[in-house]
Amino acid sequence: MGAAVIAEVLEKGKKARQAAWQLARLLRADKDRILLAMADAVEADAGMILEANLLDVKETQERGRGGTPIDRLLLNDKRVADMATALRDIAGLTDPVGEVIAGWRLPNGLEITKVRVPFGVVGIIYESRPNVTVDAAGLCLKSGNAAILRGGSDAIHSNIALVQVLNDAGRPVGLPEGAISILETTDREAAGQLMRMSEYVDVLIPRGGGDLIRRVKQESTIPVIETGEGNCHVYLDASAEADVAEQIVVNAKCQRPSVCNAAETLLVHQEAAPKLLPRIGRKLQELGVELRACERASRHLEGAEPATEDDWRTEYLALIMAVKVVDSTEEAIAHINHYSTHHSDAIVTRDLESAHRFAREVDSAAVYVNASTRFTDGGQYGFGAEVGISNQKLHARGPMGLPELTSYKYVVVGEGQVRA
Amino acid sequence: MGAAVIAEVLEKGKKARQAAWQLARLLRADKDRILLAMADAVEADAGMILEANLLDVKETQERGRGGTPIDRLLLNDKRVADMATALRDIAGLTDPVGEVIAGWRLPNGLEITKVRVPFGVVGIIYESRPNVTVDAAGLCLKSGNAAILRGGSDAIHSNIALVQVLNDAGRPVGLPEGAISILETTDREAAGQLMRMSEYVDVLIPRGGGDLIRRVKQESTIPVIETGEGNCHVYLDASAEADVAEQIVVNAKCQRPSVCNAAETLLVHQEAAPKLLPRIGRKLQELGVELRACERASRHLEGAEPATEDDWRTEYLALIMAVKVVDSTEEAIAHINHYSTHHSDAIVTRDLESAHRFAREVDSAAVYVNASTRFTDGGQYGFGAEVGISNQKLHARGPMGLPELTSYKYVVVGEGQVRA
Repeated sequence: MGAAVIAEVLEKGKKARQAAWQLARLLRADKDRILLAMADAVEADAGMILEANLLDVKETQERGRGGTPIDRLLLNDKRVADMATALRDIAGLTDPVGEVIAGWRLPNGLEITKVRVPFGVVGIIYESRPNVTVDAAGLCLKSGNAAILRGGSDAIHSNIALVQVLNDAGRPVGLPEGAISILETTDREAAGQLMRMSEYVDVLIPRGGGDLIRRVKQESTIPVIETGEGNCHVYLDASAEADVAEQIVVNAKCQRPSVCNAAETLLVHQEAAPKLLPRIGRKLQELGVELRACERASRHLEGAEPATEDDWRTEYLALIMAVKVVDSTEEAIAHINHYSTHHSDAIVTRDLESAHRFAREVDSAAVYVNASTRFTDGGQYGFGAEVGISNQKLHARGPMGLPELTSYKYVVVGEGQVRA
Repeated sequence: MGAAVIAEVLEKGKKARQAAWQLARLLRADKDRILLAMADAVEADAGMILEANLLDVKETQERGRGGTPIDRLLLNDKRVADMATALRDIAGLTDPVGEVIAGWRLPNGLEITKVRVPFGVVGIIYESRPNVTVDAAGLCLKSGNAAILRGGSDAIHSNIALVQVLNDAGRPVGLPEGAISILETTDREAAGQLMRMSEYVDVLIPRGGGDLIRRVKQESTIPVIETGEGNCHVYLDASAEADVAEQIVVNAKCQRPSVCNAAETLLVHQEAAPKLLPRIGRKLQELGVELRACERASRHLEGAEPATEDDWRTEYLALIMAVKVVDSTEEAIAHINHYSTHHSDAIVTRDLESAHRFAREVDSAAVYVNASTRFTDGGQYGFGAEVGISNQKLHARGPMGLPELTSYKYVVVGEGQVRA
């Protein structure tokens, strides 16, 4: 069993590497043709895809672990149509490959251009949503990369069906064999083998919860782009306007509490606390938010639980908010830099110095002045697509679009120059 | 012992993280003042530095493992003066921090700027040359990063002395405490602890031989920038001009054979082999190069050894060159993509199609048309400084200058915008 699993993963790695050479040479027109054919096929084969999905749903219900919410797993006509739309949208995006990022001439006459190229082979490890399969395959293809996908076991029938549909549709119009593959074994051993195949895989992107990401960071010998965890803050400065403060806090906490760019902690300047906290606290409670407050904040809040040290560190992903009163912008910045996951943090202020200082000193991928943290998103930023939100500083930080799925090379053209 | 070592490394990590907040705020004028004070101090304290170095040399000679060549370890007045010059040169470079890389306005009025910021804390693991200590410290400082250095045990006295000189000189003019530190314990345990401190270290850069880099890749849970190994090729196309071919091959192989951008394998188109190989082979042999040839190449070479499969994979770093005849540019590209370390590869040709194809399809950090592979170097590319040559595709590829020691953040300014 062990040997067979490893052989499967190795074989897919080898084929992906071969495919990558071909993918790097495809023109945008070639790639878009393949993407559109795939989109049509996803729609045409909806029946087969839904059938496979039903099997996943049934098996997950039978196992009854209550682990994966069925809603995350379940496909329907609308969701299948959305997958096709996503592929067509990707076809509409600019091809990042071949972009000349910079170019200059050296004193000796050598002409250097820095040109965007695909990574080669990208491994993507994710959890149960089957739409990620189509999305990841499309984004990798458009950026000229081969994709090795490793989805969750709950969605395995859906994922195998989807990858088959994509390959069957793409192959006749130029998709190289091995360009899109999925690990059919979803145990830890297969994932472990994927994480060690640095010969065949250039970059690994885990998309999912904190445990998954920590495991990949620990085990992978392949460069990883860490995505996702967001312990985000909104800080209300002494000069914050009450209406703006309320609308930003409510939006950041309540508009979609289960996502990484939702706010988890509210920081309030001591001078603003008496005016803002009672009003905003009540509003949040009306919207079903449970408040966990520091001692000073609780003086201005009714019905808040006391916050513990753990609350400052927790990404609730739920209608819970920690609240803390701080003495100064400086203390707010220090709190954020200490406890945050360096994802998205916002200040509400009318004071220029506080705004500049917060923007400069908060060490996060996205820092907002008078806007909601919920904007951290490739779509919102105008990238047209989102591969994930990077939580690390190497390579890409914050929302990643197609260019973040590429590397570059230097092309140096001379007339016989040698080094003295 | 174990606990004390771990406590030392943890303490340095914690202090570096604190220092990083302060370093990120320093202006270019602050950083240059510190760099110049350090340069003066390195010169003024040359006596103390050379004394420490003598101790290293003595101990290394006594151990007599013959491991580290004494020349790599040995400092003298000239080499100490060069260290001071390096620091002054770094002071002369543009500060990468604060550069606005891009900026745009969203349809909802949000204004986004993408701003260059330091990584935070950079760990550098290197081998015996003490000048790397000064260089790495200076480059990290100028890019606003705290540096945790881990040099080789052979140079430990020199490294401790140098870091002390830098800190003593920098502290009075604004260098934060903990901004530059060196692990005083050089055993594997200390390095292992450094590689696991993802809470305190943002990026790890190993500089050294293949074994070191492999170990860091295997063990580190911190994002790594892999540097160095270069199995580089020169390919002589059917149309290659003999003079140009000879000067490029000779330069790429012989000008400095011990470095990563020196060529290791010569590929020759079958049509060019009868004309070029006898002449170039003889020239290389005159210069002391041992040739290892494939069967077809050996017909045109006198006194060449037969090449084995291993030869195509080997980075000799010595006056040895593997030689292979290929049928086509396509075969040359396939050979390079299969065997190379994706560092630097060159084609010599007068044919436009071959040149374009080679530049496009060879998957290496630097691809040369009619120029020597020896140009892959931050100094040669005009970067003013070189942190290393990246061998990976994530983040930076090829020569890394100061901007490659930075990340970025998005600063988003609004007037109360929330997400619908």
